[in-house]
Amino acid sequence: MPPTGAPAYPPTPRTTPTRSRERVSYDRKLVHAILDAGYLCHLAFVRDGAPAVLPTLYARDGERLYVHGSTGSRPLRAAGPGSGPGLPVSLAVTHVDGLVLARSAFHHSVNYRSVVVHGTARQVTGAAEKDRALDALVDAVVPGRAADCRPANARELAATAVLVLDLAEVSAKVRAGGPNDDPEDMALPHWSGVLPVATAYGAPVPADGERAPAPGYLTAFARG
Amino acid sequence: MPPTGAPAYPPTPRTTPTRSRERVSYDRKLVHAILDAGYLCHLAFVRDGAPAVLPTLYARDGERLYVHGSTGSRPLRAAGPGSGPGLPVSLAVTHVDGLVLARSAFHHSVNYRSVVVHGTARQVTGAAEKDRALDALVDAVVPGRAADCRPANARELAATAVLVLDLAEVSAKVRAGGPNDDPEDMALPHWSGVLPVATAYGAPVPADGERAPAPGYLTAFARG
Repeated sequence: MPPTGAPAYPPTPRTTPTRSRERVSYDRKLVHAILDAGYLCHLAFVRDGAPAVLPTLYARDGERLYVHGSTGSRPLRAAGPGSGPGLPVSLAVTHVDGLVLARSAFHHSVNYRSVVVHGTARQVTGAAEKDRALDALVDAVVPGRAADCRPANARELAATAVLVLDLAEVSAKVRAGGPNDDPEDMALPHWSGVLPVATAYGAPVPADGERAPAPGYLTAFARG
Repeated sequence: MPPTGAPAYPPTPRTTPTRSRERVSYDRKLVHAILDAGYLCHLAFVRDGAPAVLPTLYARDGERLYVHGSTGSRPLRAAGPGSGPGLPVSLAVTHVDGLVLARSAFHHSVNYRSVVVHGTARQVTGAAEKDRALDALVDAVVPGRAADCRPANARELAATAVLVLDLAEVSAKVRAGGPNDDPEDMALPHWSGVLPVATAYGAPVPADGERAPAPGYLTAFARG
């Protein structure tokens, strides 16, 4: 990927791929754009020596990611309070942009943008940072929504845990464009090209008893 | 989740959640349906004692998942040949169905269907199974496509690695429906409801030089 000119994340052994090196980037602006285009991540951690992965929500605030959880969930408990050693994690965000159909099975592929972060997650314990993180998590899913709902009260804050993970050991991977068929396959009678994939949002469905019109930030909302 | 009547996967300590227990299911038909609705998974494994996660493609064949890789990639090499000890993995598939806006920040949620699989992945080494797995991977992305492209030749087969993972320790999680606002919040002036989310496919984009019309299985194709 061509650099955008922003300072890059320094590559490390575990953010240096063993394959498809041409797809990798450490460009900070690109990483931020991929992260900001989503809200669902997959968080991996080690539990009793074995790998575990689960889907959860995240939001970016500068060079930090906030990851949503409940105080009862395993990774959140393992991450402990803010002063503890924290929980080693790997976090991935992936957007699929297209299905790539080549004339050969081998060159079939998917167009995508992904980011993988390695680091140590810690529980957010400061009240001010936790408030800010929860606002960021709501706004990551629906921009503008944090200002249009009742903020968490003390009981709810205590029942919600947020992890923070620094963006330090980070890489992006991007595949774009058409299929890379081999020259000797170009005459084969199999259609070749890309089927674009995107996320679509339907018309808002009001909750039982809701009679107000959906707010503008929701009806106008369309993501990446 | 109500059971469908199919035999269930037996729960284990690591497929028994510590939270949101009402969302969990071990129903085999439900697990299969969630897996069959997708093709992108996040695969987690342990590398040098630390967690690692990456996006990749998968396909279900009965009670097995095939996971795509390159022979050079780290997890594929770690999984070793079919007779080796294999690679402990955790694999997640997640579909987002809606953004749930409650009147309180606390009750905001996401409607989703997810499956998490724990197990030991091994490289597929038998030629016949590898052929079948690669066909399944192509058809998982675009049903019908495996029969309409050039199959992999010996060189390509050698350059492609496939992991197999048994569906034995498996759980599904599903959240559906509207927001669960607290009774005392019902009169708040914040709109409450669900924004449906789905995957949308655009018009096929032919590769350079492709002049044939897109095949019927592609233009008719709409997932989930």
